[in-house]
Amino acid sequence: MSDPRITIIGERLKEISKIVAVSSGKGGVGKSLIASTLALTLARKGYKVGLFDLDFTSPSTHIILGVEGLQPKEEKGIIPPQVHDLKYMSIVYYSGEQTLPLRGADISNALIELFAITRWNRLDFLVIDMPPGISDATLDIIRLVKKINFLIVTTPSKLAFETVRKLARLLAELKIPIIGVVENMKIKDSPFIKQQVECNDLNFWGEIPFDNKLEESLGKVDRLLETVFARELKEIVSENLKL
Amino acid sequence: MSDPRITIIGERLKEISKIVAVSSGKGGVGKSLIASTLALTLARKGYKVGLFDLDFTSPSTHIILGVEGLQPKEEKGIIPPQVHDLKYMSIVYYSGEQTLPLRGADISNALIELFAITRWNRLDFLVIDMPPGISDATLDIIRLVKKINFLIVTTPSKLAFETVRKLARLLAELKIPIIGVVENMKIKDSPFIKQQVECNDLNFWGEIPFDNKLEESLGKVDRLLETVFARELKEIVSENLKL
Repeated sequence: MSDPRITIIGERLKEISKIVAVSSGKGGVGKSLIASTLALTLARKGYKVGLFDLDFTSPSTHIILGVEGLQPKEEKGIIPPQVHDLKYMSIVYYSGEQTLPLRGADISNALIELFAITRWNRLDFLVIDMPPGISDATLDIIRLVKKINFLIVTTPSKLAFETVRKLARLLAELKIPIIGVVENMKIKDSPFIKQQVECNDLNFWGEIPFDNKLEESLGKVDRLLETVFARELKEIVSENLKL
Repeated sequence: MSDPRITIIGERLKEISKIVAVSSGKGGVGKSLIASTLALTLARKGYKVGLFDLDFTSPSTHIILGVEGLQPKEEKGIIPPQVHDLKYMSIVYYSGEQTLPLRGADISNALIELFAITRWNRLDFLVIDMPPGISDATLDIIRLVKKINFLIVTTPSKLAFETVRKLARLLAELKIPIIGVVENMKIKDSPFIKQQVECNDLNFWGEIPFDNKLEESLGKVDRLLETVFARELKEIVSENLKL
């Protein structure tokens, strides 16, 4: 990677205090909802926050935030639009409704381009909605973002946790910090995930109950922040990030 | 693709009557559970059935079937092990516990190899557990398997259906048949998915209620087939495949 844009990326991210990459072993665990709600929660607490949707497989934070059709402003790079107190950037600005998948090399290139052009300026937190699981894109983002911290989302299911185990092992090999694991969509009282997280030497942040009101709040941020889901996440975040 | 293995693949798949690729727009919608249960259900009805796990992102049918650690027999290619009345093949036989993701070209190559070496012989149905969403691997499988039919799984969520819309549009452009859409994990009575499916000119197969007994049945096939989930799926399949 001798791409001159790499140096620019370092400059672009210099003024960001903490970068949290919200990730998961597999899709469908609520990763995008947690990334969006985490970003909104931090913004409502008065922090300067950016949200960056890099989930190439199924970008959805624009639906959660209710901002479909938005376009960023170009000015010596790209200034992320201000949305619900967030600076918000998403790959859908560029990928739009196209059906064909980007090939591996194109994804790498798109990632470098997006990080190089986006002018976040000063931020307390940049929350990244990662692609689920372990992919070339995950590795690319890790290479590009030096100060990255992972927050991993799982459900109570064994199927989800098996994939978390693999992701955590990869991150450990690459010496990338994992700040915590959140157990989402909890239905029954069971210590399974907490035990597994702790015996894999990871930090269990807490659990969030399954919330069937969530679907109705998609696209309506004020309603989203009133859900049990958002209130539980807020407590977990305040406690673990010591805000 | 002038790879000589491509011709072999045609030969290998010639004796299979129907190939059903169970797919989804995004992960976490129950795709692998539906693929496994569909295959088991057809086998219990007396059909000759193969199950092929090609979900590179998070293979899990081996956990659902309770056959971790299995290895296939080599004999002029690979004979898939017989598991619970199924011929069962999975990429985990080869990928095992490795943490690094396969790069795009390696996935293409692994797919060609797997299809070229696997000796299914005569089958009434081959059920493929596809990678979620639209990826290079999806396109590769479509190119390799001429007689492929897609069965798409979604949840009631708008976030899941948005990704189904994209997948369906891609398949339509490629002229690949979609035999139906199953709505999984239904909690509340809502016509949203059925309406969306039908106004996108797709065939709505039916809905399956959210079943919190499913988790306990992972790895226990007899128990799995007794769940509400499996019984509903069986009815939907019998009706739509006219068995």
